[in-house]
Amino acid sequence: MFKSIVLPVALLGAVVATPARADEGQWQPHQLTQLKSELKRIGITIPVDKLTDLSKHPMSAIVSTGGCSAAFVSTDGLIVTNHHCGYAAIQRNSTPEHNYIVNGFLAKDRAAELPGGPTLQVYVTDKVENVTERVLKGLSPTMPGRERHEEVQSRIKALTAECESDKAYRCSVPAFHRGLEYYRIRQMMIRDVRLVYAPSDMIGNYGGDIDNYEFPRHTGDFSFLRAYVGKDGRPADPSPDNVPYKSKDFLVVSAEGLKNGDPILLAGYPGRTSRYKLPAEIRFARDSDFPMRVAGMQADLAVIAAATMGNPAYDVRYASVVKSINNVMKKTQGLMDGFARKDVAAIKDVQDAEFRAWLAKNPAAAPNRTMLSDLDAVIAADMAMSDEDYAWSVANHSDLLYSARILYRLAIERAKPDAKREPGYQERDLPFIKARLTRLEQSFVASVDEARYSAALQRYARLPAKMRPAGLDALMPAAAAVPAMYKGTELGDTAKRLAWLTRDADAFRKSDDPMIKQSVKMQDVSMALESRRKEVAGNLEKVIPQYMSAVIAWKKSQGKPVYPDANSTLRVTFGTVAPYVARDGVIKGPFTTVDGIVEKHTGKDPFNAPKPLLEAIKARRFGVYADPVLHTVPVNFLSSADTTGGNSGSAVMNKRGELVGLNFDSTYESITKDFYFDSAITRAIHVDIRYMLWVMQEVDHADNLIKEMTIKYPKK
Amino acid sequence: MFKSIVLPVALLGAVVATPARADEGQWQPHQLTQLKSELKRIGITIPVDKLTDLSKHPMSAIVSTGGCSAAFVSTDGLIVTNHHCGYAAIQRNSTPEHNYIVNGFLAKDRAAELPGGPTLQVYVTDKVENVTERVLKGLSPTMPGRERHEEVQSRIKALTAECESDKAYRCSVPAFHRGLEYYRIRQMMIRDVRLVYAPSDMIGNYGGDIDNYEFPRHTGDFSFLRAYVGKDGRPADPSPDNVPYKSKDFLVVSAEGLKNGDPILLAGYPGRTSRYKLPAEIRFARDSDFPMRVAGMQADLAVIAAATMGNPAYDVRYASVVKSINNVMKKTQGLMDGFARKDVAAIKDVQDAEFRAWLAKNPAAAPNRTMLSDLDAVIAADMAMSDEDYAWSVANHSDLLYSARILYRLAIERAKPDAKREPGYQERDLPFIKARLTRLEQSFVASVDEARYSAALQRYARLPAKMRPAGLDALMPAAAAVPAMYKGTELGDTAKRLAWLTRDADAFRKSDDPMIKQSVKMQDVSMALESRRKEVAGNLEKVIPQYMSAVIAWKKSQGKPVYPDANSTLRVTFGTVAPYVARDGVIKGPFTTVDGIVEKHTGKDPFNAPKPLLEAIKARRFGVYADPVLHTVPVNFLSSADTTGGNSGSAVMNKRGELVGLNFDSTYESITKDFYFDSAITRAIHVDIRYMLWVMQEVDHADNLIKEMTIKYPKK
Repeated sequence: MFKSIVLPVALLGAVVATPARADEGQWQPHQLTQLKSELKRIGITIPVDKLTDLSKHPMSAIVSTGGCSAAFVSTDGLIVTNHHCGYAAIQRNSTPEHNYIVNGFLAKDRAAELPGGPTLQVYVTDKVENVTERVLKGLSPTMPGRERHEEVQSRIKALTAECESDKAYRCSVPAFHRGLEYYRIRQMMIRDVRLVYAPSDMIGNYGGDIDNYEFPRHTGDFSFLRAYVGKDGRPADPSPDNVPYKSKDFLVVSAEGLKNGDPILLAGYPGRTSRYKLPAEIRFARDSDFPMRVAGMQADLAVIAAATMGNPAYDVRYASVVKSINNVMKKTQGLMDGFARKDVAAIKDVQDAEFRAWLAKNPAAAPNRTMLSDLDAVIAADMAMSDEDYAWSVANHSDLLYSARILYRLAIERAKPDAKREPGYQERDLPFIKARLTRLEQSFVASVDEARYSAALQRYARLPAKMRPAGLDALMPAAAAVPAMYKGTELGDTAKRLAWLTRDADAFRKSDDPMIKQSVKMQDVSMALESRRKEVAGNLEKVIPQYMSAVIAWKKSQGKPVYPDANSTLRVTFGTVAPYVARDGVIKGPFTTVDGIVEKHTGKDPFNAPKPLLEAIKARRFGVYADPVLHTVPVNFLSSADTTGGNSGSAVMNKRGELVGLNFDSTYESITKDFYFDSAITRAIHVDIRYMLWVMQEVDHADNLIKEMTIKYPKK
Repeated sequence: MFKSIVLPVALLGAVVATPARADEGQWQPHQLTQLKSELKRIGITIPVDKLTDLSKHPMSAIVSTGGCSAAFVSTDGLIVTNHHCGYAAIQRNSTPEHNYIVNGFLAKDRAAELPGGPTLQVYVTDKVENVTERVLKGLSPTMPGRERHEEVQSRIKALTAECESDKAYRCSVPAFHRGLEYYRIRQMMIRDVRLVYAPSDMIGNYGGDIDNYEFPRHTGDFSFLRAYVGKDGRPADPSPDNVPYKSKDFLVVSAEGLKNGDPILLAGYPGRTSRYKLPAEIRFARDSDFPMRVAGMQADLAVIAAATMGNPAYDVRYASVVKSINNVMKKTQGLMDGFARKDVAAIKDVQDAEFRAWLAKNPAAAPNRTMLSDLDAVIAADMAMSDEDYAWSVANHSDLLYSARILYRLAIERAKPDAKREPGYQERDLPFIKARLTRLEQSFVASVDEARYSAALQRYARLPAKMRPAGLDALMPAAAAVPAMYKGTELGDTAKRLAWLTRDADAFRKSDDPMIKQSVKMQDVSMALESRRKEVAGNLEKVIPQYMSAVIAWKKSQGKPVYPDANSTLRVTFGTVAPYVARDGVIKGPFTTVDGIVEKHTGKDPFNAPKPLLEAIKARRFGVYADPVLHTVPVNFLSSADTTGGNSGSAVMNKRGELVGLNFDSTYESITKDFYFDSAITRAIHVDIRYMLWVMQEVDHADNLIKEMTIKYPKK
């Protein structure tokens, strides 16, 4: 009975004070020069100069798929990203006979690779220019908000058009620090992207919605795509004549893996964060905005459930809608829970007070004496605007009405010269509008949409009066009128809906289609709302940069660099492999292992691991992929890196810039990081490269891909 | 933003292989000589010779309260045990004006100490003799089971009576290894036990049923009692003239606490384990017995809930009944879950096969060739008996019918000379029978009991025919007859119920009371069942010792000592402070802290910490009780010690035998340990002495007790 036991922890309860670490920060690559010593300290050996240059390895291997991040892993355009990022491509190629969702898909040669479809692109960022001067030059400080906003938009449109004169590129001019700086970003847009390999969703989506935002996690969230271009090496429409894109740089894969405490680099396209919100904005979100949105989503989900009940075909149509609402709702609820657990507003109060005290002593950091009161005023206006925007979204909670409004607006904008059109309605945007209006058919049932709209109208009527945009109440249809709107509209039919893409505004005004009529009726209120929104935006764009400029000066006085909020541009973050204290007495991570898959396996979706996987685990056929410490294959691991939505599929690299995993999620406790980075609990969840390679070898026999990649194996 | 973070774990994922450890084993004190080197190896410095001698410190300080374990902590009979062990005493002294449950109780001097009531005794074990020879001498191997069982019982009764000739003692002759050995245990029974101090149940029962069997735990499960004796130093009935018992030995308290990996000793009175069950018995429990019992308990709970609904007074009556059923149900469910998680039966198969292989090579270890087949036969008979016993218990699932049966049986037994009576119905047992029949009034409502009985009769009717004892079906009342039974019986009235204690069997046979009549009617079947039960028991008592003797020889051949299953006798176990892997990627423990109380606090029972406690935490008034590593006060901690029910209140001692905590529970994952000790996951939960002392000082100001104890404080 004196049996040997193995303790998986050296010392719990032993608090190891580690030196300060730079986990926080989604850095623009050029900023990394400021972090040289910190990167060196945590053990990053790749020279910082290589990380700041987008034309050099490894940054040149990092790409975007639009909503996700990804990386090249061979010279022939092979791309690795998350399973959930490649999901649309897997889904559109699946049939009852060839169900690639359930069975996975592997192209044994290039000819077998499948089209990714019109919604899948690959963007390779190749140029980032600071164009702040060109955007802001000569703007008068007294310019009213709306005028300022429109002037800025106009300059941005010109900068974009200039850049897109070469049709191989897609360009954008996002604001950093909400307008302190503007960078023009040029991306090569590859339009022929094919599906190469995806494991079964019983691996790639193991744990499903239940495990979403949770740890311990056991998800093999990876898939492989390939970028194709014309024979001239330039992006081309999908064609059998296209050839694999020659990715000059690609990431070397390291099967050596990581261990607890190892440094990591993570590069990708984080979507949006709100790290510099004022305490009042946190309180507004926490006490008013979030609870209202969660209640709205709960109500909407209940309506969808009732309206689809008993009809499996309807269920399927709304599956991705429900998944998406659930995801946003869990995230919003996570923010509320996080704010309840830790009073982030109070922490921000302290920071804000410190800043104001510093500013009082350093008045030169502000352009004028009214900056702080200006700031409070524009923030208050922005919060009021947010309420109106929410009410507007509730009043428009119908896929058909939304389509009608987009179409009518497009008709109005199309009458103008391209350069004068509202962003989003220019020629460059038409393919995306058409794709969206087409795709609706996959996730729409008229009776369900009608039920959602009817319920939303009731919710709208219960909103506080001051939230409801002026004049809107009078335009809302009576409950009794809704059935006739759905009965009378032709917009439910895809062909008829798309036919409206080319009609002029007058045709809309003369139409008898009740949805079109409703959109025409709402147009004046819509434009008035947009005008107020632009006024607020323009004021924010003026004052926030002043404020951020002062904050940056304050931080600089403490020797601290400042990163801008995420804005879907290429960023680099770093951290270390690290567990966390989920609650008193409970430590999670940093690794999960294949043994946990067996533990969770119920045989029922989403915990239904494929038989070959279970058999390989049972037989302990781990080979080189077994961790030398854990003696089993790691599946997922945690790091302290700073990520958010959009970082899905981001390459996780070791100190040498070799690929050791893919980012795909973060823990529930981390959700508040979008507002406040709490390094004690914020952890991103990554899939371990060793699990990916092991699945490829033992389960799916993707030998061709293993051969195509450059893999460094651990020394024996 | 490069903020300092504190990592509470040195290395997760780093597997530290530790040398073999002696966590498993509930040892009889005299056995510890076999473990000398192991105790030394883990760091126990107290000489083993002291631990084997019940008359020496610290074993002489370890006592029992009947169902719980406890320890003396001063020379004046001051005893520390769990809050839930002192609960009955707290409850009986509570009134709406003085609610000691909610507010806690502290006697500022001895005069203020409150009577613990007739059900609270303290037992001090002072003599343990091996009487195997006297119990088993000359028993013929061919003796039929029932005869053998009765002869053994008769000898035990004689040995008990002999020992109890001094009325200060209560004696027992429990079987070890189900009859391989018998020890006569003499315990001084102190009958005047008073309540000295108990914190509020918002501390002592923090987390309540929700946290029962769970970790992380934050329960201050401790209370203080005092033993009183007559002026002559001998046990006496409760009286104001009594004086504190002079506890010659007591435990010194060490406020230094423990850290992860430290060795501990734990001494107490574990109730019952089943470590030597055969694989067939595990499968019977897992596949048949446990699921049936859980379903029965669930049904019973639903009936109680429905029958008490809307009547808070009924709720209160059944609160402890429900709590107790929930506790057993959670434990049984935990066994089922544990067996589902780990195939203990398969592990036992391997062990059994190894044993049988060894036995084939060492046939001399068995008394005869038929031992193994005899064993299989008696085990099969025992399992069948268990089914019948369960059916019988369902058929008798009425507190009133149960009372009637006890009373009638007592009347029958009382007609015999005391030495000839069935154990449990002798003169020495009468006070306990009376106490039980009296106490019923606190947890009984006729209409609820009637509903439970009616539902049980339906469950009985659905049991498989082979489970139902022969002849019983015909005696079961029709559903329609039950209301009349409850309407017609006088047993619901305590005085009338107790009046039957002295009536003879004939009075029962002539009674018109429907419950009495039903008990008389069932008597023949009851006796037939008992007879079969004794036959099986006698056979088990013959064969199991032969089997265990061979098993011990087998283990001895491997150099391993064997401890007997728990049987409510004094045992010593040891282990180390240790966390555990609750599931892949989740590590729990070893410590929780007061900060976790704040985390769990909802303001609603059972997570409603008292204000002074929360304030002391907020003010970080931790003083000497702050752990040097955690920088806060530890509340509960885990160790790998081998415990079970009955170990509640057991002293947890450091390597020097100083008190550092009290055992009070074990984790959910550990529940299977009653059948199989899995050292990787089995953890006992202890309350840390530092939390106890801190609560006494900061919250309840129990300065008098702090002064009375001998406390070693950490060196500055």
